[in-house]
Amino acid sequence: MARVMNFNAGPAALPLSALERAQSELLDLAGTGMSVMEHSHRGKAYEAVHNEAIGLVKELLGVPDDYDVLLLQGGASQQFAVVPMNLLPAGKSADYILTGSWSQKAYKEAKTVGTVRVAASTEKDKKFGRIPAQSELELDPNAAYVHLTSNNTIFGTQWHSFPDTGKVPLVADMSSDIAWRPIDVSKFGLIYAGAQKNLGPSGLVVVIVKKELVAAGRQDIPNIFQYRTHAENNSLYNTPPTFSIYMLRNVLEEVKKAGGLAAQEKRNREKAKAIYDVIDARSDFYSSPVEKDSRSMMNVVFTLKTPELEAEFLAEAKKLKMEGLKGHRSVGGMRASIYNAVPLEWCQALGDFMRKFKA
Amino acid sequence: MARVMNFNAGPAALPLSALERAQSELLDLAGTGMSVMEHSHRGKAYEAVHNEAIGLVKELLGVPDDYDVLLLQGGASQQFAVVPMNLLPAGKSADYILTGSWSQKAYKEAKTVGTVRVAASTEKDKKFGRIPAQSELELDPNAAYVHLTSNNTIFGTQWHSFPDTGKVPLVADMSSDIAWRPIDVSKFGLIYAGAQKNLGPSGLVVVIVKKELVAAGRQDIPNIFQYRTHAENNSLYNTPPTFSIYMLRNVLEEVKKAGGLAAQEKRNREKAKAIYDVIDARSDFYSSPVEKDSRSMMNVVFTLKTPELEAEFLAEAKKLKMEGLKGHRSVGGMRASIYNAVPLEWCQALGDFMRKFKA
Repeated sequence: MARVMNFNAGPAALPLSALERAQSELLDLAGTGMSVMEHSHRGKAYEAVHNEAIGLVKELLGVPDDYDVLLLQGGASQQFAVVPMNLLPAGKSADYILTGSWSQKAYKEAKTVGTVRVAASTEKDKKFGRIPAQSELELDPNAAYVHLTSNNTIFGTQWHSFPDTGKVPLVADMSSDIAWRPIDVSKFGLIYAGAQKNLGPSGLVVVIVKKELVAAGRQDIPNIFQYRTHAENNSLYNTPPTFSIYMLRNVLEEVKKAGGLAAQEKRNREKAKAIYDVIDARSDFYSSPVEKDSRSMMNVVFTLKTPELEAEFLAEAKKLKMEGLKGHRSVGGMRASIYNAVPLEWCQALGDFMRKFKA
Repeated sequence: MARVMNFNAGPAALPLSALERAQSELLDLAGTGMSVMEHSHRGKAYEAVHNEAIGLVKELLGVPDDYDVLLLQGGASQQFAVVPMNLLPAGKSADYILTGSWSQKAYKEAKTVGTVRVAASTEKDKKFGRIPAQSELELDPNAAYVHLTSNNTIFGTQWHSFPDTGKVPLVADMSSDIAWRPIDVSKFGLIYAGAQKNLGPSGLVVVIVKKELVAAGRQDIPNIFQYRTHAENNSLYNTPPTFSIYMLRNVLEEVKKAGGLAAQEKRNREKAKAIYDVIDARSDFYSSPVEKDSRSMMNVVFTLKTPELEAEFLAEAKKLKMEGLKGHRSVGGMRASIYNAVPLEWCQALGDFMRKFKA
């Protein structure tokens, strides 16, 4: 079967060339006579891949020297616990900004570790259909950190400018939009991201963390959960998920070849525009539950008038080889996830189909 | 380059046919038009792979119905913490049997969680060169569990019969020998195994745990670390490491095709014999630091008379396309790791080479 247009919310489309490279060398990495999966994580061949992956994260995201890049396991959901385990000591509290299901989960899990409070929530007034303004945040100046989710896959919202948290470290779950555009890493204390949207396959989480937070982290937790353990061992304390890291390398290599994050942002904005423009031009037929200036460039959420129309829309899209467009069960409607690896052509094809389907 | 004979200690050789299957469908899983890595973990195509993998673990290992099979992340090193987090409540103590570096690490990490004691150690009398007898174990009848490491990759020892721990649950780290032969799972409270030796690539850990231990597990720890969370969600609570699980499926499918674990044990014993026989027949030249009845069928450790001879041995082996034979830095010498996927032919070739090198 020909490759389909994959609008999955994650795990999601990967760059074809990154997959093709993996396929071509799956039995023999760089002339070593074995698969990357069969290499020792202590050997030179894997080590080169590992360091190249970390180097590409640093280069593409412009990670300052006073930050560590860690390659860990357990996904963002594990970081929901590991962040407060490291950064939230007894006697302190952490602030959480709630903008959707993922930030709620992070907040709920942090509660099992220590004291947390809600600094803002957009649940009640708009069903998470917008990002709060700086003026709405009730920030605790003594908080251990402020946590937010930079992009909300389910509700289709995204932070377009990050809040000023003063001297309190800002912690961001960027699982669904890391590397979608250039950011100023120095404004964050810690960034974490499950790889399976913009970076690679699942089973890998990238953590970018200020060295001073690593050093100040709690030591009364198991070694495996201390950021310092992994920082001191270049993420080779125990066997890393070698194939996922290899794919991270392949994916970021493609991003670099295609001009880095500035070029990526330009493409991503064009891609989103190709779909949002149709929603706006056909607002009698399509509607977006999201305020315009909170719209996600990664997950375009929209609804049609009736469930029957939506079912027909999905069936027709499938005939055109468009997959993964059904909205999350908790909000219904449609969702086109258009992460970094989704080409502009697919978004244009979806926009064209939306115009025709309306007609 | 032609594929080499891979004697790596882990990550290690995988069945060629499992890799070839992955290669052939890397861009298109089962006619779906996308890679297994690009599939949603909530979709039917991936779900089929996921359930097949779990089903094969249950079938091949004969897992009783009152056990859960969990597919988790973080490796065995994370289980060193997660086992006591779940199973060691305040006021109780757990027993650890120390037979090498990995059991020491498990013990040390458990100390960060709760009260642990050493029930036996073979470090001092024989430098971990043997497995203790039942009579040597000082077991606490009130322990929360007894922990052991079934095979010791670094020292080349292996438990050939498991101790009787009475009513105290036996917990085994089987990372380096799970599925090497049939076992009676009902004798264990919990078995865990990093996949990267006998089961697949790194980034995945298989946990087989008695349901009553899951139910009795502590609830005052983060949800992500509670076994019940994953048991209740068929290991789909959060995004699993989908590609690693897919490879687990491919590997176990090959094991099943080749006759299951009884046939696997027969092959593994022949493989080990092909090497140990040379060591025993040339004991003036090769020596094994391990007592005969504690010898590992997975990691054959041996030394030569001088470091110069060992360096020459490795260089000559490399010319014959034999890789990964250097012993662990902590013990030196040679180590041939001959996990399930290593074919008999490689072991025979190594044995032949050892005979010729001596001559």
